[in-house]
Amino acid sequence: MKWISTLFLVLASGILAEQLSAQNKIVVFQSDFGLKDGAVSAMKGVAMGVSADLKLFDLTHEIPAYNIWEAAYRLHQAAEYWPKGTVFVSVVDPGVGSKRKSVVLKTKTGQFFVTPDNGTLTLVAQNLGIDELREIDETRNRRTGSNESYTFHGRDVYAYAGARLAAGSINFREVGPKLPARVVTIDFQKAVVENGIIKGNVPILDVQYGNVWTNIDGNTVNKLGLNYGDLVQVVIYHGKNKIYDGIMPYTTTFSAVEKGKPLCYLNSLLNVSFALNEGSFSEKFKVSGGPGWSVTLSKK
Amino acid sequence: MKWISTLFLVLASGILAEQLSAQNKIVVFQSDFGLKDGAVSAMKGVAMGVSADLKLFDLTHEIPAYNIWEAAYRLHQAAEYWPKGTVFVSVVDPGVGSKRKSVVLKTKTGQFFVTPDNGTLTLVAQNLGIDELREIDETRNRRTGSNESYTFHGRDVYAYAGARLAAGSINFREVGPKLPARVVTIDFQKAVVENGIIKGNVPILDVQYGNVWTNIDGNTVNKLGLNYGDLVQVVIYHGKNKIYDGIMPYTTTFSAVEKGKPLCYLNSLLNVSFALNEGSFSEKFKVSGGPGWSVTLSKK
Amino acid sequence: MKWISTLFLVLASGILAEQLSAQNKIVVFQSDFGLKDGAVSAMKGVAMGVSADLKLFDLTHEIPAYNIWEAAYRLHQAAEYWPKGTVFVSVVDPGVGSKRKSVVLKTKTGQFFVTPDNGTLTLVAQNLGIDELREIDETRNRRTGSNESYTFHGRDVYAYAGARLAAGSINFREVGPKLPARVVTIDFQKAVVENGIIKGNVPILDVQYGNVWTNIDGNTVNKLGLNYGDLVQVVIYHGKNKIYDGIMPYTTTFSAVEKGKPLCYLNSLLNVSFALNEGSFSEKFKVSGGPGWSVTLSKK
Repeated sequence: MKWISTLFLVLASGILAEQLSAQNKIVVFQSDFGLKDGAVSAMKGVAMGVSADLKLFDLTHEIPAYNIWEAAYRLHQAAEYWPKGTVFVSVVDPGVGSKRKSVVLKTKTGQFFVTPDNGTLTLVAQNLGIDELREIDETRNRRTGSNESYTFHGRDVYAYAGARLAAGSINFREVGPKLPARVVTIDFQKAVVENGIIKGNVPILDVQYGNVWTNIDGNTVNKLGLNYGDLVQVVIYHGKNKIYDGIMPYTTTFSAVEKGKPLCYLNSLLNVSFALNEGSFSEKFKVSGGPGWSVTLSKK
Repeated sequence: MKWISTLFLVLASGILAEQLSAQNKIVVFQSDFGLKDGAVSAMKGVAMGVSADLKLFDLTHEIPAYNIWEAAYRLHQAAEYWPKGTVFVSVVDPGVGSKRKSVVLKTKTGQFFVTPDNGTLTLVAQNLGIDELREIDETRNRRTGSNESYTFHGRDVYAYAGARLAAGSINFREVGPKLPARVVTIDFQKAVVENGIIKGNVPILDVQYGNVWTNIDGNTVNKLGLNYGDLVQVVIYHGKNKIYDGIMPYTTTFSAVEKGKPLCYLNSLLNVSFALNEGSFSEKFKVSGGPGWSVTLSKK
Repeated sequence: MKWISTLFLVLASGILAEQLSAQNKIVVFQSDFGLKDGAVSAMKGVAMGVSADLKLFDLTHEIPAYNIWEAAYRLHQAAEYWPKGTVFVSVVDPGVGSKRKSVVLKTKTGQFFVTPDNGTLTLVAQNLGIDELREIDETRNRRTGSNESYTFHGRDVYAYAGARLAAGSINFREVGPKLPARVVTIDFQKAVVENGIIKGNVPILDVQYGNVWTNIDGNTVNKLGLNYGDLVQVVIYHGKNKIYDGIMPYTTTFSAVEKGKPLCYLNSLLNVSFALNEGSFSEKFKVSGGPGWSVTLSKK
């Protein structure tokens, strides 16, 4: 019978290893707190108090105050590059103290997102897929002694619960009760092709360089039969107002056009984007981004 | 006699463990260096050269240049959330090269603060208590080869000494000679109740959101017999000049008032604060903070 | 024969140890990405995916967009304070998608610099010395699945290759083919003494405080026979235009002059610098820095 117990042990240790490796001790923080005060540091201190073995990182803390859409976009931009098992703690929480739920989303890619369910999960839920959603049970996943604080759930609930999950102090089920597999979402123009024209959203700017990003991916572009070097017509709208209308080449390198000239390229997320070679497209043409911005793209 | 030596060993190892665990290998840096140049990184490089086992974090490096008061406040805001044994290295040092002392404060909460003794310790000394103060002996706690540098004690003395202390390369006594248990302090209005009026200080703004913080804690508020929903009269002064005078509800959530309206709440440090719901109180009413700002609060 | 094989083992393990310890698992990132979006975090996620044992740090991500000279200076400013074996990943890459080479420089001080070879290595190559330069072989040192991305080599090539090198997944030879031991450099005025006048470069400002730095080191100053307290005449040029001409003392402490008055001192890199005591020299006199700025210094 020895081989049976050996087999059992092998199987059990396999299951155990899976259980143990679901989280990877990495926590990535995001917020709209900025870096000028002590709020981010207080969150990290709480996390290190949970376990000094955690590895703490930042996504960004420069989300504009209360801008849930941008929080959603930054998670979308960075999360997929982190290993399976990473715990993201995102705190853009204009409704702190109101009835929005505090949740942890596990995506189909095996990453965890600890956040108020206020729209922050819009894009990662859509792009990485919802494996399971749980509400944080604050009776056991709230920092000891923090019950009188109503305004800093980032420190008292999200950082604490996220650290406990990342450290393996709790497993995903111990976060709290399971919720239906849907999150609060923000509306925006999905990328679609109609009669040879692509419609899409301008979710955000590449702020540092003034480039304009869309949610139109390379596969959608391929449906237009575009080749590098072809000219495209680009029209950008804010609501119903036309903000920009122009023609530019579809290219792989900024230096394919003269300094100051516009170009269309696939950005780091392999989404269609617009830039000026060594200039700021967004500044020159007063283009911004967000759920209310849209774009059409056609072959010229 | 065996049980005696066993007992001795048990006691000795207990003492040793306490000794070894007084520091926890965590260093948290703060400065007015900003994040645009290489100064913060140089400090961290020095620390990693002391021991690659250290875990390095930031409080903030965006303290306004030379603003010792704000350095004091940020330590106060974040330190208590870090585990016992954490070493804070704070470098806001307008007097570098002059005669201010370089010290390490051990607080009664078991945390260490490495800094010039120029007022930076005002609030942690008061709030966390002074366990012991020592002057850094630069003959043994200064980066090798740095004796010709007069201007960057952050890197050559504070980061180096802090890293050695955090890593356990030295214990607290080996920092240098013991000083009297008092630090250089900055004057400000303590929170007091007189004839049904609370007086206090406006130490700082919640810069990211424009909220106005005070040093009046919830227990002091309770002496006024305030309940959530009650109206309070708030008057804010800069020196002797009245800057704001208004009435607002005392509440637990921003959304208790209409968008743009003022409210009074307990902030993340459980101190009385003033905000506009989704607006900037400090900007609208030209209120700032610092040791020269004060406030009175009374029940309406 | 036993002693021979023992000797062999000792030697072999020594070589192996050297091989294994050439890198130290520390990666320090620098870029012009800013901290507002997810780009820096995506790079770190990629690195943690290579090895969760890595220790990740930042130099700065606030290099002005496309400013290769400042990238070069920040590496120069911070690198020498990090331990031997540290891997720096610097991504200021206006030519991404063009023909600039992707390289790893090993300096004579045993540090590694992963970067586009576009001038970024100007100062560390000169000051720390070139031990060996290798071109990154993207067929094996590029993130899996990233071949369609042309615009974010920081994440797909530099962070990935840097992390593999730092983690010991590859040794330095496995980076790719060896190149001739020279890097692309940016021209600037070297520090020289001629007829009792020192000429030098104003590489950069100490942005946080408005101090003006030069590349003139203390040894060069000594050739003028200057003592602390002596007066010096300082003339600063932008190209051929004289921007500042003034006299100030050479001193070790800012408080040696009255508030608002100029002084000359050795900065944290032991280079001659100019400041106002509690003021901004650069703002008051419209002085900036860069390869096109120069200075002369003479004893008054």
